Amino acid sequence: MICSDLNTPTLLLDKKKLMENINRMQSRADRLGVALRPHLKTLKSVDAAHALVYSGAKGITVSTLREADYFLEHGFSDITYAIGMIPSRLPEVARLMSLGADLKIMTDNLKVARAIASHANSSGIPFRVLIEIDCGDQRGGIQSDDEELIPIVECIDTSYASFEGVLTHAGHAYDVNSVSAIEAIAEQERYAAVHAATRIRCAGYEVSTISVGSTPTGLYANDLTGVTELRAGVYTVFDMDQQSRGVCEVENIALSVLSSVIGHNKTAGKILLDAGGLALSKDRGADVFRPEVGYGQICNVDGHAVTGLYVKGVSQEHGHVPVRNENDFKTFPIGSYLRILPIHACMTAAAYNSFYVIENDVIITEWKRINGW
Amino acid sequence: MICSDLNTPTLLLDKKKLMENINRMQSRADRLGVALRPHLKTLKSVDAAHALVYSGAKGITVSTLREADYFLEHGFSDITYAIGMIPSRLPEVARLMSLGADLKIMTDNLKVARAIASHANSSGIPFRVLIEIDCGDQRGGIQSDDEELIPIVECIDTSYASFEGVLTHAGHAYDVNSVSAIEAIAEQERYAAVHAATRIRCAGYEVSTISVGSTPTGLYANDLTGVTELRAGVYTVFDMDQQSRGVCEVENIALSVLSSVIGHNKTAGKILLDAGGLALSKDRGADVFRPEVGYGQICNVDGHAVTGLYVKGVSQEHGHVPVRNENDFKTFPIGSYLRILPIHACMTAAAYNSFYVIENDVIITEWKRINGW
Repeated sequence: MICSDLNTPTLLLDKKKLMENINRMQSRADRLGVALRPHLKTLKSVDAAHALVYSGAKGITVSTLREADYFLEHGFSDITYAIGMIPSRLPEVARLMSLGADLKIMTDNLKVARAIASHANSSGIPFRVLIEIDCGDQRGGIQSDDEELIPIVECIDTSYASFEGVLTHAGHAYDVNSVSAIEAIAEQERYAAVHAATRIRCAGYEVSTISVGSTPTGLYANDLTGVTELRAGVYTVFDMDQQSRGVCEVENIALSVLSSVIGHNKTAGKILLDAGGLALSKDRGADVFRPEVGYGQICNVDGHAVTGLYVKGVSQEHGHVPVRNENDFKTFPIGSYLRILPIHACMTAAAYNSFYVIENDVIITEWKRINGW
Repeated sequence: MICSDLNTPTLLLDKKKLMENINRMQSRADRLGVALRPHLKTLKSVDAAHALVYSGAKGITVSTLREADYFLEHGFSDITYAIGMIPSRLPEVARLMSLGADLKIMTDNLKVARAIASHANSSGIPFRVLIEIDCGDQRGGIQSDDEELIPIVECIDTSYASFEGVLTHAGHAYDVNSVSAIEAIAEQERYAAVHAATRIRCAGYEVSTISVGSTPTGLYANDLTGVTELRAGVYTVFDMDQQSRGVCEVENIALSVLSSVIGHNKTAGKILLDAGGLALSKDRGADVFRPEVGYGQICNVDGHAVTGLYVKGVSQEHGHVPVRNENDFKTFPIGSYLRILPIHACMTAAAYNSFYVIENDVIITEWKRINGW
């Protein structure tokens, strides 16, 4: 099967690039002496998870309990659910654990820790708990020097639940676009996690897991002394958001949307594609550093980027591509195919239930993925 | 069932508001003397389609052939596929017609018209063709005075296919936020369609359908003389994008995302929700006129808007809500529920496979919807 056999818009995954990206991060983790626990929030695919574990990954990270359920059902039991726990989700966590999941959960809050401990004590479920540290991202997590840190550990540790360690995510590494700035944030990430762990150890508790990670910091950290594991997700396929930050090259992007040209608006100087906001997502994450990219980089159907052609506007089912000159209308006639490198792979992939896996311009297989909650 | 019985994030549809919105547009169409052919791209739900037809709609509009297939399977045969046709899709159109679809297709291009005519002649499939007119939106369509207009009609009319009429969409009505500006665009939309139809009639062809529409112009057109039908979609549920343009009130918005509070980052002054970019979409359409709204308006779980609380940032599975003061942490403790009015209903709904239909704070049923292509 080749691209022109597919209905558009649809999602293509370049297997060679995927495996190169997977191996790149795995080599870094190996060299830095940490386990790699890839985040499956990007691909949400069992086949992708197999490729990651085959290449050396130890366990997986998920962003929803639906993902945990799906991966468990397909034989992946070592799972970290890296979103702040709420008490109403403990029964589902317990259910997954009873089915064999070695599921780690996370909190940054004393009241939630108490609820976990209470549920563990009353049910006998040995929840395994990580504490989330905010290393500067200002999303989830408490500060590594927060006075509640030790009370949370104590609350967990004195219950039937077990305290596993600390986890942080340098999401603010996406705010910069130089190697030196990423290196500095990687050190901030490492320091926050290790500092929290040191405080906890000094208070007399064992810390088994010290988990850090994001794609930029994973790729550019110089040193992860004290850290036990690295988590990252979008590095598996990359996207224009990462490219705009200097984290990858356009040629590394393994995910693309196959689209058909459905119109020529010659008065407005636009090619219209059947990939719009739903097919690409409305993420504009590359705007900060490469505003010209808009909603995606246009490639020929063979996957080579076309310089200067971007999806500059989207409506629900239309992508708007301003032409460079009249020749573009000839190069991309109505009905022709092209590919779009997405701005944010995690967002774009979520519009599809599968990837068509492509190798040397041939579709070799279809990998199912899940969505929703 | 009530909200707290649901897993979050999930999608709620307020039935009373939905029916009020449906009736509002139907009354307008009736008063203006045109048929209403609602666009199902927003709701993509058979149950919603039944509610629309029950209230007086004549036929439906769809944005994908997948939608056409789904609605046909559920008994809706009078369908306009309002996206530019490409020749590779003609076999699927023919298949749907062979199953009983009274399916109208659309083009603005002479080469595509020739391909349709040729396919009709060789297969004997009587494709029914509308010509798309650009009334100022600069997306699909040719100008109403374009010299290719009559040749396209002629090409269709001399084949086994039939020429049905003209269709236009004033998408640029979304660029303004005053009633007078919307009224002016509605007249531009009407004029473009009627002008094209007049030219075609003067050339000796019958024009059965003169179709216009968008939610703003549908609601504010003063006169639709010469027009036969009105198409619109998002008016069924509205959203903050429409509200920011003065097209509806916050109280009219029938769609909301039910979300749980999953974190308090007191250092950063934020409540964290489990509705992030995937659950809400990354549409920022309200930014032009109400930049404070961000990714959505926060409501209490009963659906009443909370003044000054918005989802100002999203990551994949987190919504970031800056608090107004410390009290907000008490009002919205971890584990509590709230609702978010989305920026763009069509984009947000696409993350879900169903709506939970709510009436007087009780979930009365679940309406399935479709996604994808």
